[in-house]
Amino acid sequence: MLSVGDNIEEIKSALEFLLRDADVVVVTGGLGPTTDDITTTAIAHTFDKQLHTDNAVLLQIKGIFEKYRIQWTDNNTKQAVFPLGAIPIVNHAGTAWGYSLEIGKKLIVVIPGPPKEASAMLRDSIIPLLCQRDETKQQTFRATVVVKVFGISESKIDKLIADSGLHALGVDVGFYPNFYEVLVTVNTYQANEQQAQKIIAQAKKILENQLGEHIFSFSYEALEATVARELMAQQLTISVAESCSGGLIADRLTDVSGSSAYFHNGIVCYSNESKTKLLGVPDEVIKEYGAVSKEVALLMAQGAKKVGGTDIGLATTGIAGPTGGSAEKPVGTVFIALAHDAGSFCQHFSFRWDRRRNKMITSQTALVMLLKRLQNKNLCCITHYFQ
Amino acid sequence: MLSVGDNIEEIKSALEFLLRDADVVVVTGGLGPTTDDITTTAIAHTFDKQLHTDNAVLLQIKGIFEKYRIQWTDNNTKQAVFPLGAIPIVNHAGTAWGYSLEIGKKLIVVIPGPPKEASAMLRDSIIPLLCQRDETKQQTFRATVVVKVFGISESKIDKLIADSGLHALGVDVGFYPNFYEVLVTVNTYQANEQQAQKIIAQAKKILENQLGEHIFSFSYEALEATVARELMAQQLTISVAESCSGGLIADRLTDVSGSSAYFHNGIVCYSNESKTKLLGVPDEVIKEYGAVSKEVALLMAQGAKKVGGTDIGLATTGIAGPTGGSAEKPVGTVFIALAHDAGSFCQHFSFRWDRRRNKMITSQTALVMLLKRLQNKNLCCITHYFQ
Repeated sequence: MLSVGDNIEEIKSALEFLLRDADVVVVTGGLGPTTDDITTTAIAHTFDKQLHTDNAVLLQIKGIFEKYRIQWTDNNTKQAVFPLGAIPIVNHAGTAWGYSLEIGKKLIVVIPGPPKEASAMLRDSIIPLLCQRDETKQQTFRATVVVKVFGISESKIDKLIADSGLHALGVDVGFYPNFYEVLVTVNTYQANEQQAQKIIAQAKKILENQLGEHIFSFSYEALEATVARELMAQQLTISVAESCSGGLIADRLTDVSGSSAYFHNGIVCYSNESKTKLLGVPDEVIKEYGAVSKEVALLMAQGAKKVGGTDIGLATTGIAGPTGGSAEKPVGTVFIALAHDAGSFCQHFSFRWDRRRNKMITSQTALVMLLKRLQNKNLCCITHYFQ
Repeated sequence: MLSVGDNIEEIKSALEFLLRDADVVVVTGGLGPTTDDITTTAIAHTFDKQLHTDNAVLLQIKGIFEKYRIQWTDNNTKQAVFPLGAIPIVNHAGTAWGYSLEIGKKLIVVIPGPPKEASAMLRDSIIPLLCQRDETKQQTFRATVVVKVFGISESKIDKLIADSGLHALGVDVGFYPNFYEVLVTVNTYQANEQQAQKIIAQAKKILENQLGEHIFSFSYEALEATVARELMAQQLTISVAESCSGGLIADRLTDVSGSSAYFHNGIVCYSNESKTKLLGVPDEVIKEYGAVSKEVALLMAQGAKKVGGTDIGLATTGIAGPTGGSAEKPVGTVFIALAHDAGSFCQHFSFRWDRRRNKMITSQTALVMLLKRLQNKNLCCITHYFQ
């Protein structure tokens, strides 16, 4: 992946470098209406092509402006200009069309830069186009297993996998660490599908044996989507009470479409007064143990459950930082509590990141605690997390 | 910017391509402990250097593992291995150190990939190192103005700027559109500082004339930080009531350190019951006008203000999608209301994105409304936003 500035000679040199090795180059960005959008001009210059305006495309773009009542400005005409010989590719998510252009035996594909438009066009037009060109594509079968892992580091995972016989299967292993979870992908490419599936089944078994309870998902989907499926399957409802996570758990739970089926309400209780007034945490308890304490976390979770009239209450209280820490309760001290009909429990954590990341790891840990509880799994992986 | 896979020959070819034109190449990533981290091996191979372990660095890394009680695994030793002749660069945010390596008259700088580590090391070590090397650096002065713009598209901004005389100043103009705001940067490089400042002052004036009320900030800082400064300066407090934004406004407001000074509480009231129970919105009003209505939004904002005992109440109600829309109230219908001591007001919006982005644009619009109100500015730019 080569990224260059809005400079015609730089774009030319980049295209020439990439085409030395590649059969296909996908170019993104620089198709907009503004003066710094020069991709099409640069491509015409590189391959000595003339430019022309496609009137059918222009009409379609003008239609979008009318539909959304956006004022037309003439610089938008540029978005319907293509090098001669290019085949336009429709953009359903924005105004600038893409195009493909044959250069001898090689192919240049050009699409807009905004991620939503680029990914939709890749999926709907570019990948099908490339598969069509590649006649051997039908003869290789890929099988994949992905796991999402919580509570151990990338290097620990690598170590556990190194001794496991996974690499002996001849698979490609990839690690995608995020500071609060690690995505591990395993791919195999085989001449027949059955063989690919067989190898991946063995790989999955090895991963389960080696990583055990640290695996919380076998899917690319976001943790909140996994939690949502589990809540809906069990027809359970939830309310949350957030202090240090500041609304992030509610935000994540409501990112899932249809979340009103299980999510009743969230209370972001930053002040002590709001913990008392909105959740019924007695003032004396806050005074005796402090707002950041196991006692208050448990009462917040129970309060959330009661106020929301839900099956589950989930609560966080802690010190996100960078200020507010003390010797006894340093920045990163967080209590997460879960209340349900069978009882309540609370865990104490010592996180060590900046404010935003302490909020993120708090929301992640709370959602993993919830998921494990829903699956009746033990919580060892959480209680030992960086403790 | 050239990005390659974990492949020694690809890394070699990338380094050779970049060094044809560049005096300095900064390499990020691939310094971790796992088997796919091969950057140092590839650099040693490319420039024919031997590898050695730096024991002082190794000791420091082991110290970090002890401090955070993370179990040591031997593959971490790799993070203290350098090509001969490299000068290690300390990493205060992680375990893998970076290094610089002179190759003839050119320089390779290698730093870890995690964004937080890379950006801290760039700021603290790499940029100072490069300034030191560049003796002419002292002789060019850069001046910059940035504006953040809300409520008009990138192409409209470009058009407004094109006719304004801005380009005639000989400045570099950059557009960084995000679907909910556009960052415009203007830079000038001059032989003396005074001249640079004079040109930038003219550029700023032109931007203010052309973009007017659409400008909400002259800073790179996040909108929530700008709002926070304004609230603190005026010693005002706020509570929020969120339906369709699902906690995102509370999350953003609490991302600012010290937010407990102005943020009291947030209520994420997804169910109708919670709107009644927690915010005092009468059941009959919800029945008559619907939960997504101007009437309910206003009562939510007033309820948030009252429950939180704050100067300001901010509320959202709408249909984030993709389900839940109707002919009368399609997906993207959002009401945002603001209640303060002098009165309340509400605006109706028709957004047109997916669920996550409808939540994001709702939070952004609500915060811009709040900021404009705090600055006693008019809200035209908002009321006409995509209407």
